[in-house]
Amino acid sequence: MTQLHHSTVPNTKSQIQDPFWSEYIRLVREVVVPYQWEALNDRVPEAEPSRAITNFKIAAGQTKGDFYGMVFQDSDVAKWLEAVAYLLGTQSDPDLEQIADEVIEIIAKAQQPDGYLNTYFTIKEPGHRWTNLAECHELYCAGHMIEAGVAYYQATGKRVLLDVVCRFADYIDTVFGKEPGKLHGYDGHQEIELALMKLYHATGEEKYLKLSSYFIEQRGVTPHFYEEEWRKRGKTSHFPQLTMIFDHAYSQSHLPVREQITAEGHAVRLVYMCTAMADLAAETGDPGLLKACRKLWSNIVSKRMYITGGIGSMEQGESFTMDYDLPGDTAYAETCASIGLIFFAQRMLRISPDSKIADVMERALYNTVVSGMSQDGKKFFYVNPLEVYPAAHGKNKIYDHVKPERQGWFGCACCPPNIARLLASLGDYVYTKQKDTLYVQLYVGSKIDLEMAGKQVRIEQESKYTSNGEVSFRIHTEQATPFTLALRMPEWCDQVEVTAHGKRQVFKSGDEDGYIRLNRIWEPDEVIDVVFSMPVLRMKAHPLVRQNFGKVALQRGPFVYCLEEADNGAGLYQLRLPAGSPFEVQPDDQLHEGLNVIYATGERWTAAEGWEEQLYRSDSRWNKESAPLKFIPYFTWANRGLGEMSVWVEETQSKDV
Amino acid sequence: MTQLHHSTVPNTKSQIQDPFWSEYIRLVREVVVPYQWEALNDRVPEAEPSRAITNFKIAAGQTKGDFYGMVFQDSDVAKWLEAVAYLLGTQSDPDLEQIADEVIEIIAKAQQPDGYLNTYFTIKEPGHRWTNLAECHELYCAGHMIEAGVAYYQATGKRVLLDVVCRFADYIDTVFGKEPGKLHGYDGHQEIELALMKLYHATGEEKYLKLSSYFIEQRGVTPHFYEEEWRKRGKTSHFPQLTMIFDHAYSQSHLPVREQITAEGHAVRLVYMCTAMADLAAETGDPGLLKACRKLWSNIVSKRMYITGGIGSMEQGESFTMDYDLPGDTAYAETCASIGLIFFAQRMLRISPDSKIADVMERALYNTVVSGMSQDGKKFFYVNPLEVYPAAHGKNKIYDHVKPERQGWFGCACCPPNIARLLASLGDYVYTKQKDTLYVQLYVGSKIDLEMAGKQVRIEQESKYTSNGEVSFRIHTEQATPFTLALRMPEWCDQVEVTAHGKRQVFKSGDEDGYIRLNRIWEPDEVIDVVFSMPVLRMKAHPLVRQNFGKVALQRGPFVYCLEEADNGAGLYQLRLPAGSPFEVQPDDQLHEGLNVIYATGERWTAAEGWEEQLYRSDSRWNKESAPLKFIPYFTWANRGLGEMSVWVEETQSKDV
Repeated sequence: MTQLHHSTVPNTKSQIQDPFWSEYIRLVREVVVPYQWEALNDRVPEAEPSRAITNFKIAAGQTKGDFYGMVFQDSDVAKWLEAVAYLLGTQSDPDLEQIADEVIEIIAKAQQPDGYLNTYFTIKEPGHRWTNLAECHELYCAGHMIEAGVAYYQATGKRVLLDVVCRFADYIDTVFGKEPGKLHGYDGHQEIELALMKLYHATGEEKYLKLSSYFIEQRGVTPHFYEEEWRKRGKTSHFPQLTMIFDHAYSQSHLPVREQITAEGHAVRLVYMCTAMADLAAETGDPGLLKACRKLWSNIVSKRMYITGGIGSMEQGESFTMDYDLPGDTAYAETCASIGLIFFAQRMLRISPDSKIADVMERALYNTVVSGMSQDGKKFFYVNPLEVYPAAHGKNKIYDHVKPERQGWFGCACCPPNIARLLASLGDYVYTKQKDTLYVQLYVGSKIDLEMAGKQVRIEQESKYTSNGEVSFRIHTEQATPFTLALRMPEWCDQVEVTAHGKRQVFKSGDEDGYIRLNRIWEPDEVIDVVFSMPVLRMKAHPLVRQNFGKVALQRGPFVYCLEEADNGAGLYQLRLPAGSPFEVQPDDQLHEGLNVIYATGERWTAAEGWEEQLYRSDSRWNKESAPLKFIPYFTWANRGLGEMSVWVEETQSKDV
Repeated sequence: MTQLHHSTVPNTKSQIQDPFWSEYIRLVREVVVPYQWEALNDRVPEAEPSRAITNFKIAAGQTKGDFYGMVFQDSDVAKWLEAVAYLLGTQSDPDLEQIADEVIEIIAKAQQPDGYLNTYFTIKEPGHRWTNLAECHELYCAGHMIEAGVAYYQATGKRVLLDVVCRFADYIDTVFGKEPGKLHGYDGHQEIELALMKLYHATGEEKYLKLSSYFIEQRGVTPHFYEEEWRKRGKTSHFPQLTMIFDHAYSQSHLPVREQITAEGHAVRLVYMCTAMADLAAETGDPGLLKACRKLWSNIVSKRMYITGGIGSMEQGESFTMDYDLPGDTAYAETCASIGLIFFAQRMLRISPDSKIADVMERALYNTVVSGMSQDGKKFFYVNPLEVYPAAHGKNKIYDHVKPERQGWFGCACCPPNIARLLASLGDYVYTKQKDTLYVQLYVGSKIDLEMAGKQVRIEQESKYTSNGEVSFRIHTEQATPFTLALRMPEWCDQVEVTAHGKRQVFKSGDEDGYIRLNRIWEPDEVIDVVFSMPVLRMKAHPLVRQNFGKVALQRGPFVYCLEEADNGAGLYQLRLPAGSPFEVQPDDQLHEGLNVIYATGERWTAAEGWEEQLYRSDSRWNKESAPLKFIPYFTWANRGLGEMSVWVEETQSKDV
């Protein structure tokens, strides 16, 4: 039996009760998770069969058949279980729990006597475990199962899956490590590293931390493991068309992690790796590792991130490209990558509060992540472009990866379960705690019970943040309790009013780290009212971002806005927003309840008449017509049929400038 | 013996003597063709061996070995021979002719007893002739050999290769055709069709015309031949990673050619096909075929052509995309495709003169084609972008096909021989003749001897067209001869002065078809002096070309201009050209002798200071600084090291507009 351990990470789990987010969580509970269960059991007629549950049954000896699916098919089951666990952690659901328990039974039976657990290798290549870490996602699948095991245990107190993954991790620990005779490798797709840290926090078993650290530190060491194992197995490849074995930057194994200073390669892998690095740095206090985390964080957010919090500028390799290269129409900006960026941000915030990090978390969450799922929970974006011109899709193949409308589940099998597990666990992202300070990182309506200064405290956050910037905190203590409530001052906010006991204070900025600290001895029932001013901001990108030069994007509160054809007509590229033009903010429940749209008077440039069959002319002028512009929150795009969309719009100079 | 025939196409071959073009032709003669000869014989140490000559020797039984190279390796030898033929046609070179004769001897020996000639199938797949027309370029290679045979015969009077290709064509005629028992197919890459028309014109053998017509008319008929032959051969593919068998639009076989109204698929294939269609229409007078040619021509030049005369908007499939989709930075605009467009234009001009068609021919020739070869004849562009930002190359893989500097031969094996054969035969493109009118399509210094009104006439064109727009014609007749010299009025020209016998006439436009007709009885020795005004034009693209909206490109005379980093500093995307700003045209021999550059006063927009590590800000403004701009002819770009280049520049409105 694994010795249970009180995590070194303070428990700051809150229960979400929010006018904006609760609906998304309901969709996860009522639509996404049930749909995925049907899919995993091959009961979705329109989808290719998953066979993921069947694979486990075959490996468990309960049925006969061949393995079916991708080498990482197991992870679909694991991610589903993890999302289920988070749902069970917030609301009892005996039927769902019974289904999950039954799945866990099958998984337990599929585990091999030595602890190994992977249906692909068990069924299809039983003699070839750990022979192709570069390509086969073996430890990646292990990581997802570990995350599920930990989450399920934390939600239900049930240990079956936790014990399974501990045995699996114990076995992995006998296979990998620096000792002679062990494999000196690591997975092509990072995931096991952050999962082992969760397992360490759940169990207190230091060997899991050490194994995570081993995988992190071994990465990028020469001679290169992927080439060594490739030679050892006779130079074969599972995916000869891919470049995983030799393109080391793709999997962030081109350099030891501590020497990596720019975000390279596959974006999801990079942020999963950084999440584990930050976990390790938090636990060990290793200054070199923390420095590496900060360098990579800084490179991402100051040079390689879309204004929507999307990361990954190209389809090829689902990868980063270079500093300041942020094309809007051929963007990748995978939903999963922004989810990984939120994981990384959360871990960094646990180390030390920094409002700028939380700003990025908020940016990714309120724009790319929430854009990733339709408002009925049934359709998803895998890729999140900042500009689409649908007529060119299917014609110019540089856009083939970009879908101008959200797709059904199987158009993008990895992102929906990732959205599900993030939203179902959103309560983990609202607060962080350092000693006797509770940091509010997100203004999401929620309830949290926790210990401050050795006493039980309940904080209820009520939030109209997405509508008008109003948030209130009701603080319940059993007796007067001294602690600090630190409110993040969002980067887009120029003024915060904080009212307590009828006393109103106005803040123009936070402390050096960006937080407004309310340091009090809290009486049993106190209320803090907070109002964030939400000006419409004309955002510009760094002048080296050539794709956005001369353009502006609007932002108000946490939301980045965009123009859509449905509101502004076709030919968005002809629209211009004059510098200094005034804005009108209006509620608009049609797109999304309680949200605001922005109106402005812009210009539509047109070319003089008479083009007919001419393609190039020297005698044409631009005409300018006044054009009413309507901007909507980016995440609400693509809900009104196929049409053009653009986040960035050309800015013209007013004549008096 | 084949019966020789006087071609139905009037002979309008001229000898080039031009300050601009003669140097390029010299490079073809002294650098390109000798280099390719070395390459074909595997004597270029830095290049992968070609083995193309060895393949022929093996097939000829002169040596032993395996076939090496692409399925279309033979065509490299054919294109070389064709270029050699054109060179020999303009200047005697006994050494070169002897080498060519020896190669032709080997080719003749490689021909099989039944007339078949293809080293790939002869050596490597002897039992599989004509089993994979979709992918294997068998008739494409035949076509290039036919073109070589015709050209060599016309240049030297030697019939060996002509007889070889006639035997081959006769054999092909027994294999393909509508009769039962024959194959009802056509090649994946059009070429045989235009080649058979040349063979028909050279020999008068109507069966070659009929066979060409058969291939053209059979194309796109259902059931689809490529799928039929695929089933017949057991559903195998030579190139499973490619989509040639099922992507019918790629090879313009998605519809019968007469029903095709938009230019789809691989650009080179399309224009080669159209060239043959126009040849056939000219010969047969078939109005339906001519209509199809005109529709496709119109679609290309009015909706799918770059301002440089480049065609093919994407790398995937080296293909057209859709109307008005003309990205500059991810353009394909293959040099070979513009060469094919010139072939098509020439055939259309032979049917009926139309200055707009010749304008396109000139546009492609003076911009994309001549840009394709470096000024030392040693480096080449395969892809001709209209915008490059070299820092992103190698980083963002959407640019992987675009090279910011010309490459050595083997970076782009198909374009150099195509440039060579076009430039070596440039004398065929200067004039066309209809009855007693000689049309000047290109203002290239040259000498032509031909029959007008039944009498011998010599016309010497002396041209400073590329420098200052001055051209003169010296017309030699033996006796007074009535005919019309029709001068093309270029689209970019607003005024032409024509001086004859001391009499100066000014034309603001040509006749309805765009030509200024000088209809005279020409005395034995007359001189016509022509001066074309060459204003600097601010070209705009059709307002549906979203990539160029709000931008202008400069053109002067036949040359499109561009901005380069070498002259204007880094960050070309920050430059703006105010509407109405004046231009200064200055000769600049540094880039290219006798050419002019254009100076203008523009603006450089910069962002306010203080960005540091910020990626997005709401408090930054654009500053405008005056910036001297220097524009150079597009074709001279990339001769001064790696740097940014842009044809299109943002236009700002002057305040008084």
